[in-house]
Amino acid sequence: MGDFMLYTSTENNKIKEIKKLNNKKYRDETGLFLVEGEHLVKEAINADLIKTLIIESGYFFENIKNIEIIEVSSSVLKYISSLDTPQPIMGICYKKSSEVIGNRILVLDNIQDPGNLGTIIRSSVAFNVDTIVLSQDSVDLYNSKVIRASQGMLFHINIIEKELKSFIKDLKRDGYNIISTDVKKGKSLKELVKKEKVVIIMGNEGNGVRKDLIDLADDFLYIKMNNDCESLNVAIATSIILYEFDK
Amino acid sequence: MGDFMLYTSTENNKIKEIKKLNNKKYRDETGLFLVEGEHLVKEAINADLIKTLIIESGYFFENIKNIEIIEVSSSVLKYISSLDTPQPIMGICYKKSSEVIGNRILVLDNIQDPGNLGTIIRSSVAFNVDTIVLSQDSVDLYNSKVIRASQGMLFHINIIEKELKSFIKDLKRDGYNIISTDVKKGKSLKELVKKEKVVIIMGNEGNGVRKDLIDLADDFLYIKMNNDCESLNVAIATSIILYEFDK
Repeated sequence: MGDFMLYTSTENNKIKEIKKLNNKKYRDETGLFLVEGEHLVKEAINADLIKTLIIESGYFFENIKNIEIIEVSSSVLKYISSLDTPQPIMGICYKKSSEVIGNRILVLDNIQDPGNLGTIIRSSVAFNVDTIVLSQDSVDLYNSKVIRASQGMLFHINIIEKELKSFIKDLKRDGYNIISTDVKKGKSLKELVKKEKVVIIMGNEGNGVRKDLIDLADDFLYIKMNNDCESLNVAIATSIILYEFDK
Repeated sequence: MGDFMLYTSTENNKIKEIKKLNNKKYRDETGLFLVEGEHLVKEAINADLIKTLIIESGYFFENIKNIEIIEVSSSVLKYISSLDTPQPIMGICYKKSSEVIGNRILVLDNIQDPGNLGTIIRSSVAFNVDTIVLSQDSVDLYNSKVIRASQGMLFHINIIEKELKSFIKDLKRDGYNIISTDVKKGKSLKELVKKEKVVIIMGNEGNGVRKDLIDLADDFLYIKMNNDCESLNVAIATSIILYEFDK
């Protein structure tokens, strides 16, 4: 590395501020979040959302113009990291979202498991979703487990947080076909006619989609399955539906 | 509950033996494993694979003929349990597998994440897989996280462990169509002609299917996706493929 400031004390204020990014409250206040490991840092750089690189002293990483770089000792790295085995490179990133939402919208009502949300983001990029809309009671998008499970795909898709009921009403007025899942009165996924402007609503792991959102739906669908199985994991069900819509 | 033996000491030998079922080595030796919570216990009872019910003192659970029941104090329950918040009912279950394997086989080569394996089991039941074949280096099927992620579906499907190379050779000789995933030379999943006797091979989270198994495949397939996304989570990819084959 070059001549960068080397931080060796966990008592340093700048280091303490960085560590605070592991808490949602501080991420919300600053509009920043952390990613860990070379793969995620590269995705953040490509998305032009990196603010600061944090590199373990002695680790080689190509020099990048116009990005602040700070070197830290391994004990400082361990202090900042949310991982049992910290990676030698981390990044502080800017949050970003756009109000341009596109034609294919995935609405997630109160997803709680970070692995599920991350996996859904990954599948949403794979199957060309334009925007993911999270309810305000969802697990935080910038939770480190969500970011890891997304495999960095959160940098490739627009993700916004909304009060869902009024937002879905707006989308309905704009001509979107609002689709919810329902085991009892749904059409089979394979039979559903896909419209151009589509909103797919997926619900909480235990409780499904909340009633006042179901009431807004134009169509319902279900995934045909063996009777021994009550339901699929929500990330699986979402991915299969997105796969079918991506034609 | 009735007049059952109440265990209040974690020093009791029987209790120590039960706790040891949290270790794979002891599960392998005894052919037994633990499930936690009423939902999984009921699935085990329905599958006729329950040996002993372990119930927290004071918890009501219907009396079941011919099943040993032991009552434990909450401290003993906490000692046995693998959960941060133990459930008031657990079961000791018999492992079971059959050599009758059916027409639709899913082979899993070195799946390491317990959540992925459990979710794949759940989707396999949903989409009518007859038998899941695990490589000997896979995460243990009776790991508590696998069982939880399967939502008890491991009681509804035949699951066996095999040395994969020789087993797939046998299946090939028996006329099964051996299918592996391959991003480079595969056919699109939507185009593949489905045969009656099918073996689908899915690979490790990071490395995919090992080369000497790929060499045994008759057909290759891939799931068409956006270029921004290198790959899907293995449980997602497996579930989408099983969904397509279930027609």
